[in-house]
Amino acid sequence: MSLEITFLGTGAAFPSPSRGASALALRREGQCWLFDCGEGTQTQLMRSHLRAARITKIFITHLHGDHIFGLPGLLCTLSLQSNDASKAPVDIYGPLGLRSFLWRSLELSHSQLLFPITVHELVPTRDQCPPEEFKDFSSLDRGEELSQGPPGRVLHLDAGEDSYLLVEDEQLVVRAFRLFHRVPSFGFVLQEKPRPGKLNVQKLKDLGVQPGPSYGKLKSGASIVLENGATLFPGDVLDAPIPGRKICVLGDCSGPLGEAAERLCRDADVLVHEATLADGQRDKARQRGHSTPATAAELAKRCRAARLVLTHFSQRYRPAGQPGHGDTAVTELRRQAEAVMGGREVTLAEDFMTIEIPVKK
Amino acid sequence: MSLEITFLGTGAAFPSPSRGASALALRREGQCWLFDCGEGTQTQLMRSHLRAARITKIFITHLHGDHIFGLPGLLCTLSLQSNDASKAPVDIYGPLGLRSFLWRSLELSHSQLLFPITVHELVPTRDQCPPEEFKDFSSLDRGEELSQGPPGRVLHLDAGEDSYLLVEDEQLVVRAFRLFHRVPSFGFVLQEKPRPGKLNVQKLKDLGVQPGPSYGKLKSGASIVLENGATLFPGDVLDAPIPGRKICVLGDCSGPLGEAAERLCRDADVLVHEATLADGQRDKARQRGHSTPATAAELAKRCRAARLVLTHFSQRYRPAGQPGHGDTAVTELRRQAEAVMGGREVTLAEDFMTIEIPVKK
Repeated sequence: MSLEITFLGTGAAFPSPSRGASALALRREGQCWLFDCGEGTQTQLMRSHLRAARITKIFITHLHGDHIFGLPGLLCTLSLQSNDASKAPVDIYGPLGLRSFLWRSLELSHSQLLFPITVHELVPTRDQCPPEEFKDFSSLDRGEELSQGPPGRVLHLDAGEDSYLLVEDEQLVVRAFRLFHRVPSFGFVLQEKPRPGKLNVQKLKDLGVQPGPSYGKLKSGASIVLENGATLFPGDVLDAPIPGRKICVLGDCSGPLGEAAERLCRDADVLVHEATLADGQRDKARQRGHSTPATAAELAKRCRAARLVLTHFSQRYRPAGQPGHGDTAVTELRRQAEAVMGGREVTLAEDFMTIEIPVKK
Repeated sequence: MSLEITFLGTGAAFPSPSRGASALALRREGQCWLFDCGEGTQTQLMRSHLRAARITKIFITHLHGDHIFGLPGLLCTLSLQSNDASKAPVDIYGPLGLRSFLWRSLELSHSQLLFPITVHELVPTRDQCPPEEFKDFSSLDRGEELSQGPPGRVLHLDAGEDSYLLVEDEQLVVRAFRLFHRVPSFGFVLQEKPRPGKLNVQKLKDLGVQPGPSYGKLKSGASIVLENGATLFPGDVLDAPIPGRKICVLGDCSGPLGEAAERLCRDADVLVHEATLADGQRDKARQRGHSTPATAAELAKRCRAARLVLTHFSQRYRPAGQPGHGDTAVTELRRQAEAVMGGREVTLAEDFMTIEIPVKK
């Protein structure tokens, strides 16, 4: 089953012609999930190979404008283009306050969506940002229920797990964890559940079990009774389970809060981390709640992530391959991250770059 | 003094890579005024020859998303780029509800603008849209004062003039008039005041008046006393006043409401009018509160506008010069308008097209 991510906006603070505002699409099983939705995301989607109509879930890392100002417009356009009422509902996950932002934007622009949306809000903890920046949005949206869909959940931190459980089905689980930024920010982990290992066909044949329904039963975890009356357990004829893939997408941050990030992102296949400024500006970055390539690489190293992808670059950095004088090229940021990673390759995100994450064998 | 308009977005309903969402910039005396601000306007500004930092006034025709969803992001980016606090204040004019939209968007995204903005709200009349679409936003923004600038005015219709007076100084006046649309919509007229006619220098010399302060006095409208004791009035030595230029920008509409549009737009140098759908779709257009080329041309003809510019085209129409099969080319819409205008040339707006309006002699 294919799994890929496509960067739709890799610029910090505002969209520019060379880097859109933050947005990333994840494609799996014909569905498209969006992470952040800065202004212009709908146009970036049109320019990409993706089909916006496939979007069924949207995850918002934090409420800064360059991560949410494209959301009302994207929803309106999805609605306009789905006038056969076949558009699947959309579940939206993001910090407390997101529902009010959407409600007010849709209400004041007289926008009636033709498909259901549901906003699930994550309640941040007060220590996710400097105390003077914290705003309590818990009583903001009284009487502002989105009429377009079923009411969303209000998700509080699971103190034991130090995370938020957002989605779980037979195939995967999505959790959020806390980050420290100028405003409360979150990271998201999509983890596929392990698949059963391969059946040892030779062993089954030796035991006299012929291909048929028994194979399916064993693979699904049930035991069978052999003709000689003995019970055959799945573990007897199945290889070790095949681990699922893990994708981690972090919002803006100067670093994670608590131990969940490191635990949940352990052995990630891909870790997407912001690197707004170069290492030489580490103090300035931290003061603004942002990371440098070294900050990102240190976390990736601690998590033993297979692949670190840097994104959310200040628009001051010249895109790779673009000539220019004086300005720092973004490739310098890669060099800084690779130095921390002991020379291991680091990827620099570009708008419309797609990364495929192969199935594990 | 140069006066020009630049189209930044000429598409209907949503932004696309070939046509941005609605936005038009007017440049005069080093200042830049914006009419509508659909999603992506800030990026379109970066792609154009205009300098966003020069924006001092923004006029919003109506509250549909494709006309306002770019406004919070544009203001945030202007603020980010003006950290020397030299950015001039921005006055924003638009329908009631606009202040609440902006307040909520800026508040929830934790955006602190570093320059003052003031939102002046136009109170629409209930007959500007179908009764079932009318929403009363008059009590929406209690306690939502924008802290970023002085409070704005609440502008009610001047019943005698059937219009709203927005701006008036020594050089020009800007008025709004009512349009009929799915939601209350407005048109804006910028009218330069007449300049005094040329001094008849030969006549002055014959009367013995030498070049000097007297010339300035006469030009400014004051009379002078000649050496022989006679009084010379400005009208004796000034040619007829030179009329100012007039630019009319209409929001989405199926037509104007009341008689003000025709009166205020009379003899416009440029009349910018939407033509969302072709004439063959006139019923559908009207039902959606929109115009076709013939609707626009009929108004332009009645107003004796010197130049009609059509814009806000449904994204279904193929841009001029772009090959394609089956789809109607936008040039067909020009033909339809020109048929009504008795063959007079009609202009089709394209993103980044600039039209200069020469000074009258």
